[in-house]
Amino acid sequence: MITDSVSLLSKFKEVRLQSERICKPLKTEDYVVQPIVDVSPPKWHLGHTTWFFETFILVPFLKDYSLFNPDYGYLFNSYYETVGARVIRTDRGNITRPGVQEVLAYRAYVDEHMEMFLSGEVENEVNDLLELGLQHEQQHQELLIYDIKYILGNNPLFPAYQNQIEKTDTAARPLGWLNIEEGTYKIGFDKQGFSFDNEHGVHQVFLHEYAVADRLTTNGEYLEFMEDGGYSNFKHWLSDAWEWVKTNEIKAPEHWHFQDGKWHQYNLSGGLQAVNLDAPVTHISFYEADAFAKWKGLRLPTEFEWEVACLQYGSLDHAKGFSDNGLYQPQSAVNDNQFYGEVWEWTASAYRPYPYYEAPEGAVGEYNGKFMVNQMVLRGGSCATPKDHIRATYRNFFHPHLRWMFSGLRLAKHL
Amino acid sequence: MITDSVSLLSKFKEVRLQSERICKPLKTEDYVVQPIVDVSPPKWHLGHTTWFFETFILVPFLKDYSLFNPDYGYLFNSYYETVGARVIRTDRGNITRPGVQEVLAYRAYVDEHMEMFLSGEVENEVNDLLELGLQHEQQHQELLIYDIKYILGNNPLFPAYQNQIEKTDTAARPLGWLNIEEGTYKIGFDKQGFSFDNEHGVHQVFLHEYAVADRLTTNGEYLEFMEDGGYSNFKHWLSDAWEWVKTNEIKAPEHWHFQDGKWHQYNLSGGLQAVNLDAPVTHISFYEADAFAKWKGLRLPTEFEWEVACLQYGSLDHAKGFSDNGLYQPQSAVNDNQFYGEVWEWTASAYRPYPYYEAPEGAVGEYNGKFMVNQMVLRGGSCATPKDHIRATYRNFFHPHLRWMFSGLRLAKHL
Amino acid sequence: MITDSVSLLSKFKEVRLQSERICKPLKTEDYVVQPIVDVSPPKWHLGHTTWFFETFILVPFLKDYSLFNPDYGYLFNSYYETVGARVIRTDRGNITRPGVQEVLAYRAYVDEHMEMFLSGEVENEVNDLLELGLQHEQQHQELLIYDIKYILGNNPLFPAYQNQIEKTDTAARPLGWLNIEEGTYKIGFDKQGFSFDNEHGVHQVFLHEYAVADRLTTNGEYLEFMEDGGYSNFKHWLSDAWEWVKTNEIKAPEHWHFQDGKWHQYNLSGGLQAVNLDAPVTHISFYEADAFAKWKGLRLPTEFEWEVACLQYGSLDHAKGFSDNGLYQPQSAVNDNQFYGEVWEWTASAYRPYPYYEAPEGAVGEYNGKFMVNQMVLRGGSCATPKDHIRATYRNFFHPHLRWMFSGLRLAKHL
Amino acid sequence: MITDSVSLLSKFKEVRLQSERICKPLKTEDYVVQPIVDVSPPKWHLGHTTWFFETFILVPFLKDYSLFNPDYGYLFNSYYETVGARVIRTDRGNITRPGVQEVLAYRAYVDEHMEMFLSGEVENEVNDLLELGLQHEQQHQELLIYDIKYILGNNPLFPAYQNQIEKTDTAARPLGWLNIEEGTYKIGFDKQGFSFDNEHGVHQVFLHEYAVADRLTTNGEYLEFMEDGGYSNFKHWLSDAWEWVKTNEIKAPEHWHFQDGKWHQYNLSGGLQAVNLDAPVTHISFYEADAFAKWKGLRLPTEFEWEVACLQYGSLDHAKGFSDNGLYQPQSAVNDNQFYGEVWEWTASAYRPYPYYEAPEGAVGEYNGKFMVNQMVLRGGSCATPKDHIRATYRNFFHPHLRWMFSGLRLAKHL
Repeated sequence: MITDSVSLLSKFKEVRLQSERICKPLKTEDYVVQPIVDVSPPKWHLGHTTWFFETFILVPFLKDYSLFNPDYGYLFNSYYETVGARVIRTDRGNITRPGVQEVLAYRAYVDEHMEMFLSGEVENEVNDLLELGLQHEQQHQELLIYDIKYILGNNPLFPAYQNQIEKTDTAARPLGWLNIEEGTYKIGFDKQGFSFDNEHGVHQVFLHEYAVADRLTTNGEYLEFMEDGGYSNFKHWLSDAWEWVKTNEIKAPEHWHFQDGKWHQYNLSGGLQAVNLDAPVTHISFYEADAFAKWKGLRLPTEFEWEVACLQYGSLDHAKGFSDNGLYQPQSAVNDNQFYGEVWEWTASAYRPYPYYEAPEGAVGEYNGKFMVNQMVLRGGSCATPKDHIRATYRNFFHPHLRWMFSGLRLAKHL
Repeated sequence: MITDSVSLLSKFKEVRLQSERICKPLKTEDYVVQPIVDVSPPKWHLGHTTWFFETFILVPFLKDYSLFNPDYGYLFNSYYETVGARVIRTDRGNITRPGVQEVLAYRAYVDEHMEMFLSGEVENEVNDLLELGLQHEQQHQELLIYDIKYILGNNPLFPAYQNQIEKTDTAARPLGWLNIEEGTYKIGFDKQGFSFDNEHGVHQVFLHEYAVADRLTTNGEYLEFMEDGGYSNFKHWLSDAWEWVKTNEIKAPEHWHFQDGKWHQYNLSGGLQAVNLDAPVTHISFYEADAFAKWKGLRLPTEFEWEVACLQYGSLDHAKGFSDNGLYQPQSAVNDNQFYGEVWEWTASAYRPYPYYEAPEGAVGEYNGKFMVNQMVLRGGSCATPKDHIRATYRNFFHPHLRWMFSGLRLAKHL
Repeated sequence: MITDSVSLLSKFKEVRLQSERICKPLKTEDYVVQPIVDVSPPKWHLGHTTWFFETFILVPFLKDYSLFNPDYGYLFNSYYETVGARVIRTDRGNITRPGVQEVLAYRAYVDEHMEMFLSGEVENEVNDLLELGLQHEQQHQELLIYDIKYILGNNPLFPAYQNQIEKTDTAARPLGWLNIEEGTYKIGFDKQGFSFDNEHGVHQVFLHEYAVADRLTTNGEYLEFMEDGGYSNFKHWLSDAWEWVKTNEIKAPEHWHFQDGKWHQYNLSGGLQAVNLDAPVTHISFYEADAFAKWKGLRLPTEFEWEVACLQYGSLDHAKGFSDNGLYQPQSAVNDNQFYGEVWEWTASAYRPYPYYEAPEGAVGEYNGKFMVNQMVLRGGSCATPKDHIRATYRNFFHPHLRWMFSGLRLAKHL
Repeated sequence: MITDSVSLLSKFKEVRLQSERICKPLKTEDYVVQPIVDVSPPKWHLGHTTWFFETFILVPFLKDYSLFNPDYGYLFNSYYETVGARVIRTDRGNITRPGVQEVLAYRAYVDEHMEMFLSGEVENEVNDLLELGLQHEQQHQELLIYDIKYILGNNPLFPAYQNQIEKTDTAARPLGWLNIEEGTYKIGFDKQGFSFDNEHGVHQVFLHEYAVADRLTTNGEYLEFMEDGGYSNFKHWLSDAWEWVKTNEIKAPEHWHFQDGKWHQYNLSGGLQAVNLDAPVTHISFYEADAFAKWKGLRLPTEFEWEVACLQYGSLDHAKGFSDNGLYQPQSAVNDNQFYGEVWEWTASAYRPYPYYEAPEGAVGEYNGKFMVNQMVLRGGSCATPKDHIRATYRNFFHPHLRWMFSGLRLAKHL
């Protein structure tokens, strides 16, 4: 929890600036579209994160604040039913006005008022909302990266988002196993500092002895599954998964393209490139992660197994990935006990409330709780996650067929 | 496990006869249709359960057996991808031939050969398959009852399946609570006798102290939720649930109809009748069960909490419901510690494999494992379940929006 | 127009009996289903045609008539919005009650009252309605044949409706041309006897000199188109047609199946049989008829060209086809100037009102006029049309993608 | 036909410039989106019209011409199947690159080469293609205006495209009738100058005596239909139309909004404004035009009746509307015998080929002929049509449910 107003203000400025930094390489045209329902137009992300601060902080707490534009509440609300009418999600990509410049003016206006507001004394309640707003904006920064990748990566011209950053192609380390003893473990967040409501309801779980792989599954390993006919043998697939594979004619991870006799993937840095066999596989759905693990004769870890293993073996300090390096691409799987910052790891756990979980009152109560069905938990953060946004107890979640985000897997087994 | 051939044969005959008994009140026309994808035509159930014995027992184990009709494999396979091409599920309701008489002739032919086969020595392996076939047929008997109810209950004439059986309208007992202490509990089946693969992977779970209601939620209680605007206030609903409510304009449980100023429900016994306020609410989706519990400020039990509570407080011997009484309608919630045989109880648990779970080899391996995603677990059996089919560890599962089956809920809370 | 009560009664009895005769070979199960929206369940046809007489004659004109069942109006109305609520068309195939026996009892009840009614003096107004009711029933007899063919022909077992009737496979005659001089011609019906409102609005059209083929296009000729890649070359197809071909993966006429290296077609008489190359091609959509003609470098005649040519060259007396022979299959194209009774001929004309056309008042006004958009006109009657139902001015109409009826084509050209 | 190279060049420059003029008021964001399948992104129109000249003139006829970008053929082909792979129409709105500046650079590059090319001797064949390309671009200019109106008019902020141009609100003149005698009339184009292939096949038609209204139907008249319950009484509607009304909950013309107790319409000039009761009704589908006429007890003219009446009574010289005035809004119905340049008039005629019609060879043959099914003919041009683009014989066509274009109606009757 950030408590002094100087660092609060500086954190605020830094986070707000980062969203605009991410959009810098875009053309105006790129800010507008919504090619699939899961992707939002970049300018919508910029407006929506701003709307959050205006609606939940400036309007209730800044005396005499007047709205930048009363229509924006309607345009930039995402799904907070509490707050009022909203543009239905599938329409977002057809709303050309306000344009990028107006959205940036909206940001500037709200930032100016927020900075004025934060220069004064800030109550604890507001402090919490502010922290939530910043975490919220960091989440949208991550979504911005996914969405930009989808928009550019589905353009027939495959335009690169940025030049390729030089990289050292190191071979992946051989896969080893990390063992965990049977026992009752504490799950969830009860430390100092920020956390989301869905990590609460701290409780105990009993785990039988198990092991998790000491690194992520690589593209090379995934390609073996593909070359073994993985996508055409129903035996590896859950029933809903098999329907998904057949209906959508899935044959490879998202952003993979077969050209000139070999597999390429679209990367934000550098555009279309040959698949790096040593990097963690990414842009796979839960269905694919689960099928791969079954094909291997193994399984995914539960979110509890992941959390316990991460706390025991992982280290955020040594983690090298994350969005902070600006590469937006998972790197070769070379590190020891890498649990953070390459790709979100699908777990075997459905996203459900912890015992004792209670959603907060009001609109912020819609943040996490209402999504707790039909989704699977992912852990660890990705190359699009800010490093100061993640922790071992952090629960991300997506529907099992989605894969436009940086998602991958780590294998597990019982002993 | 049934081991002597006399009781094996007699169990076989009894189960097979029961499927036909259930269909007795139908007109030929009722056997044919598939009004929604989840409902199968009754004659398909009769054929499919027969196909199971023919395919998995007679063909591999009865020397010189010749198929009744080689086309039937194609027509009556349900979803066993291992076994070959199948009629896609949505088409089942348009296949008028073979007719009911031919399907009954198919049953007679297979039964005759099965009885011949069972009169001899039966190997253990076959014994297991036979037991599975009978359990499978009992599951289809339950589906038959749901499906017949859907077919007749969605006919504008609301024809009754059978005359109303006399009933004593007793008031529901006041709701009490059953407490369970914190601790590590064993979950899953490791006794003698039949069980499904999804109950295996016996393992331990840690449970914090909790309580479950000592009876099911009644129609009267559910009506309070409805009259409090439960279906029009998004706050009670999960996000996917709220979409479902709005898209399908859901306003009441399935089979409920508002006529002449009050709520009626279609019952197999007696047709359209005023809702019995003291009977357990049924034909609700997980979404509705969860919303009701939230509205109450409570929650559903997890499947582990349910199993532990049931083992501690429930008693199969004292259970009065089940399909055995031929009523096919849950009765007034008057009994102590009723855990079985009224309605399947939605739990808070997503349907996922237990630790150590492994799907069996071959086609029977497709029985349960491949459905372990996007579904929720239900426990306890219903008024359409044969009493000798259920046990405390039995895991039923449905997608969370489904409600044509006898589904209801029991409340739970932490202490 | 039938005017004396004896022949009126006898016509009534004969037409009513014919509907039941057509259904005779069916199993009860076949009466129930609706595999596609265009097909209605046979028992619905039997009920609907009966409902017509009950609603439009018995209720308004027979003193003290009481309805057989007040719910039947709801169940058996087709689309007469004037008359009240109706079962939506896509649901018809899920309504198992009333069963076939009840529908036959309904027919018997209405017939008995109609016969009683017709024994007395009948006013002209009623006479017209009666004639319309009989024509209406004949149209449903034709639909019954299409629908039965669809139901049985899409069953994986391909059950025959009746045994194959012996036929003499005669080679088709070489195609010749019938010339028509330029001039102004009268179009529409203004003779004695029954006609539909859509033939009215008698008027004149100017036709430039043209010729029509003296026989229908054969299966053999159509197969040449197929073998020349007709279904995979966009050049032959209208834009909407090409979408239809691709979306539905159309590769041959309806009811054609490629087996053991050659094309078969499902016939009501005899089931699946090798295609008769000399018989008129049938079960093709307007899109296919038009593409075939374009591929030939020719075109379809307009409905006016067809009517004028038919009046000049055709002869109803010499026509051999029609449903009267009970074969329900077009025969070898051997006859001179055959314009009637093999397959309905797609014309180049969109179905629009004639000049001076006015829809009658009341529910019967919904008979034809409201369909006058997005459909194409067909002429000539088919092997499923009763011979006394057709005439040169008769306008049939279907949406251009439909082909479950007996539809074919005749070529035309300008000179 | 333009034959001298000076005026050819000047016409080319003028038409090309006009497309860019139309887009001038747009923001970059407005160029990108495709809110419904019928609307194309403005930058696509700019690219596609350019591609036409590059593909059909520069590539085949300009020696040593090199493509601006080989990928553009794929991106900017619309539907010419002959020419190769194309971006499927529904995806156009997600293609953010090339951006507006690149598309304008593409235009400049092609224009430069075209101008170079046109400075030399131009063969007749090329001349024809050039004329077609310019007519094609004018058609896209009209579509640009519809599409821009749809994009801005469906934005919740209702941004105006341009300031409102001052107008004199004059009352509509009383409706009179123009009579035409019975006779045989020539239809189609056989004059000097440009025409489309669908106007060819000049031929004669016989027309019975009739009359057409001497002006278009006004918003005021249409409002009477609405206030008489026109949209909720099935009697006025064709069957397909009634389905469309109910499925889409149609209650008023496109771009009409009920606010503060009265009807407004979105106009490109000035944004949302009270409906001008004296102006011609526009943005109605054929279904609405037909229903209105039926409600009036009248009908729409056929395209032949329209053409003959227009040739007899209309005058292109006196027409005041068209896009040339830059207003893009139909004006008060005050003029005598106004047949041109306000709104396209739905006729009673389905769009079918004329006798003797033949589609040209090659890709330009896909221009008109392949659309000749399921669409209705409209005549007269609109306030978005360039005045030098129209003539009495010009056949426009749209599917009967469409109404994002400037479409309206004129009444007709037989005498």
